[in-house]
Amino acid sequence: MSQSRPIRRALLSVSDKTGILEFAKALAAQNVELLSTGGTARLLQENGLQVTEVSEHTGHPEIMDGRVKTLHPKVHGGILGRRDTDSAVMQEHNIKPIDLVVVNLYPFKATVEKQGCTLPDAIENIDIGGPTMVRAAAKNHNDVGIVVNANDYPRVIEEMTANNGSLTQQTRFDLAVAAFEHTAEYDGMIANYLGQRVSGAEPQRFSRTLNLQFEKKEDLRYGENSHQEAAFYTEKGVTAASVATSTQLQGKALSFNNIADTDAALECVKSFSQPACVIVKHANPCGVAVGETIMQAYERAFSTDPTSAFGGIIAFNRELDEATANAIITRQFVEVIIAPGASRKAQTIVGSKKNVRLLTTGDWQQTTPQMDYKRVQGGILVQDSDSAVVTESELKVVSKKQPTAKQLEDLLFCWKVAKFVKSNAIVYARDGMTVGVGAGQMSRVYSAKIAGIKAADENLEVAGSVMASDAFFPFRDGIDAAAEAGISAIIQPGGSIRDEEIIAAADEHDMAMVFTAIRHFRH
Amino acid sequence: MSQSRPIRRALLSVSDKTGILEFAKALAAQNVELLSTGGTARLLQENGLQVTEVSEHTGHPEIMDGRVKTLHPKVHGGILGRRDTDSAVMQEHNIKPIDLVVVNLYPFKATVEKQGCTLPDAIENIDIGGPTMVRAAAKNHNDVGIVVNANDYPRVIEEMTANNGSLTQQTRFDLAVAAFEHTAEYDGMIANYLGQRVSGAEPQRFSRTLNLQFEKKEDLRYGENSHQEAAFYTEKGVTAASVATSTQLQGKALSFNNIADTDAALECVKSFSQPACVIVKHANPCGVAVGETIMQAYERAFSTDPTSAFGGIIAFNRELDEATANAIITRQFVEVIIAPGASRKAQTIVGSKKNVRLLTTGDWQQTTPQMDYKRVQGGILVQDSDSAVVTESELKVVSKKQPTAKQLEDLLFCWKVAKFVKSNAIVYARDGMTVGVGAGQMSRVYSAKIAGIKAADENLEVAGSVMASDAFFPFRDGIDAAAEAGISAIIQPGGSIRDEEIIAAADEHDMAMVFTAIRHFRH
Repeated sequence: MSQSRPIRRALLSVSDKTGILEFAKALAAQNVELLSTGGTARLLQENGLQVTEVSEHTGHPEIMDGRVKTLHPKVHGGILGRRDTDSAVMQEHNIKPIDLVVVNLYPFKATVEKQGCTLPDAIENIDIGGPTMVRAAAKNHNDVGIVVNANDYPRVIEEMTANNGSLTQQTRFDLAVAAFEHTAEYDGMIANYLGQRVSGAEPQRFSRTLNLQFEKKEDLRYGENSHQEAAFYTEKGVTAASVATSTQLQGKALSFNNIADTDAALECVKSFSQPACVIVKHANPCGVAVGETIMQAYERAFSTDPTSAFGGIIAFNRELDEATANAIITRQFVEVIIAPGASRKAQTIVGSKKNVRLLTTGDWQQTTPQMDYKRVQGGILVQDSDSAVVTESELKVVSKKQPTAKQLEDLLFCWKVAKFVKSNAIVYARDGMTVGVGAGQMSRVYSAKIAGIKAADENLEVAGSVMASDAFFPFRDGIDAAAEAGISAIIQPGGSIRDEEIIAAADEHDMAMVFTAIRHFRH
Repeated sequence: MSQSRPIRRALLSVSDKTGILEFAKALAAQNVELLSTGGTARLLQENGLQVTEVSEHTGHPEIMDGRVKTLHPKVHGGILGRRDTDSAVMQEHNIKPIDLVVVNLYPFKATVEKQGCTLPDAIENIDIGGPTMVRAAAKNHNDVGIVVNANDYPRVIEEMTANNGSLTQQTRFDLAVAAFEHTAEYDGMIANYLGQRVSGAEPQRFSRTLNLQFEKKEDLRYGENSHQEAAFYTEKGVTAASVATSTQLQGKALSFNNIADTDAALECVKSFSQPACVIVKHANPCGVAVGETIMQAYERAFSTDPTSAFGGIIAFNRELDEATANAIITRQFVEVIIAPGASRKAQTIVGSKKNVRLLTTGDWQQTTPQMDYKRVQGGILVQDSDSAVVTESELKVVSKKQPTAKQLEDLLFCWKVAKFVKSNAIVYARDGMTVGVGAGQMSRVYSAKIAGIKAADENLEVAGSVMASDAFFPFRDGIDAAAEAGISAIIQPGGSIRDEEIIAAADEHDMAMVFTAIRHFRH
């Protein structure tokens, strides 16, 4: 099983031609006979390489515009033949062993995303011969190498060079796994695309089966709790700034809960254009603020709830600077700091606490919309991620009192925070800083109570603050309580059957109230 | 494109032989020529059907123990040839059209789950010819039918009978999609299995890529919020009692939030052996109780927090009876009722409220462990679901005071509830009923405060109650506050660096305290 296998004959047929010429030359230099088809064959021949066309090799012409060219016993016997037990039958049928298969598939997703791609175009682009060779070679990896990724070319050549033209069993196995990963992804994409079209009419948003492939980024020490095993997987080819693509500059390995909380903190801080700081604990923002600088933002975010901020995750939307790093490190226990970047001096300061995880994401554009998944027993709920953003012009003032410019600013700030607080969410804010966060309650009135209690416990003045509610108020009691606490303006979706009553309550208390017409449940 | 295609020649080669004989007979009765291989051919021949072996059809022997038998231009030209543009080349090469391909693949998962299956066994069982025929026929579904599921046989025969031996374009397309779903699942399973083994040594728990396939159960009206599109997918072949497998007897379509909350309620109520009721609102249990009957359990669960119970999800672990149905329907607005079953009379009563969703699950055994997924931007966190259960004998009494039998019972009850409350979770309970649920707070002390406030607001006596905390107490303040509220016994994981201090606090207050050594974070 663990033998090296000399490579004497290779079949090359690639959609992605990156590096293929250099690779083929290197193979030829090691006296490997090259078989090829179509565009790959032409490219190699034009560059002076001696290549045998597969049709010549099989003695059977390429037919049906290439639909049938490699689906032949000479090819598949050459790939699938076991070099020990099948050598006699290979000789008998004049089947020459193919020791290396270099095939990759044109991403089906790219096909269907092309402008004007029709269903017949998509179907015509489904590769049959390619996946068969990939799968056959992967199955017979005991004797055959299969390369589906251009970035594996260098290591294949290196290993052959170092190893008398052979690949080790370990490499062949590793490549075989990559091969099945490639075909699984390919057929998954096809099933997703065609599965949106089974009803016959317009493509449906959600395909009949949902086929997903993620790549493991790292095994985790454990999951949400220590008796749960866990790993972190990322989407293939994802580049947008996120916890998934961030770089860890220092600190202990991220835990399951670190990753989840860092994601919440980062996605929330991305909402702000001014320098901002978000501190997350147990999946909820416990302090959020904007400021002239991130230092100021941090100081203000921290002051919302210093107790919860202990051991929290801190996210910024500007490079971490020396002063802010110093303020954090000297003041509090912190699990993770994440920011677009970190100055050298800031890195040095965080470096004084070896365990603190410092992550950088690079600059970001807007958040990329993606699918959101929620696991339930026996299934999964799939939805668009909540990427709705409400702008000032979309707000509808429903109270007699118009919000002031400053109130409007605070209302929009507060609304952005509420979107990231677990429902029912009530957020009090003033001057671009949270003064009370009421999270995760089964009735809205308790979220409001908690926001008030927390503000009081931290001696934060509620009078003049604004309030955001992630969903409409079912009753006027929430408005009455807010007024009593000193709230001066309210932002909420509206849409309750009691809206009139609720607006009347705001008017009674001489409060401003704006409707967003967008709800932000987040459970 | 939308033509019917007469079926004159079919290739049958199935791993799952369910119904294949009847199907083949029905095809033969419609004068379809049968090609087949191996075990399928033998079965049909033994039952008097005239079958041409594929080797005879191709003129090429089956070689390499069947590794190469169908990978031949006669087969694949016959499948892939376009009946219009390729007819000349088909004639030229004597390639006879194959109009129907009936192939299914032995589930790779079943292979590797077999006792004693080694890696070479698993690899030997990877089918190359089968998926190639499935994919080729699916690609050319414009001219060819592909059947991968035995339960599609009847409709194929019916349609052929009604349609002069032809299948419609719509049916061929639908079958083609199923074909790619089949191969995507197959290669996904292989990639998962092999991907656990890339490191060379022992299989790793988490494979290099995670390949998932779910089947759409239903499109949802919208997601967590109305601006998010959504659908509900279930795992293939899942049978265990769950929201995914439940039967809806009446009511409006389930919403995204309904499904998530029903899942939480059902999984929580499954924890109890006594008749029990769980009421969930916004992903958290707002009232849980056991009782002599589910009626009693409901009354008690409701009384924990009648405000939150309004519009809640109610789950039972016994058949819904008339009295309980009546109590719910006459008292409160309810979104969903779920139970193992519902008596006819209970169904009639719920029927008086047309919108209320009534779901039944059938009886359940233990909850099936599964993987849990948590979405983050750009990736997914994967972990074992939290299936840990703590029994009385595993509890460690750390206080001087021993809990009484009744306290122990309440502690275990309370602990089961805390597992389903969002972290930080503090639950007060007495006599098998929650008296205060503190959910989803960023610091534990606020969860404790909320549990107390809620109990007080509902005039529920805390004195003599017990308390569960889903994670250890970082400081003694939580213990002091609990004592002040009248809590007599505490259950918690333990494991804080201040455990000694916390135990001392319990002793000071003459409280019983037990450690579980298991944490139940749930975010």
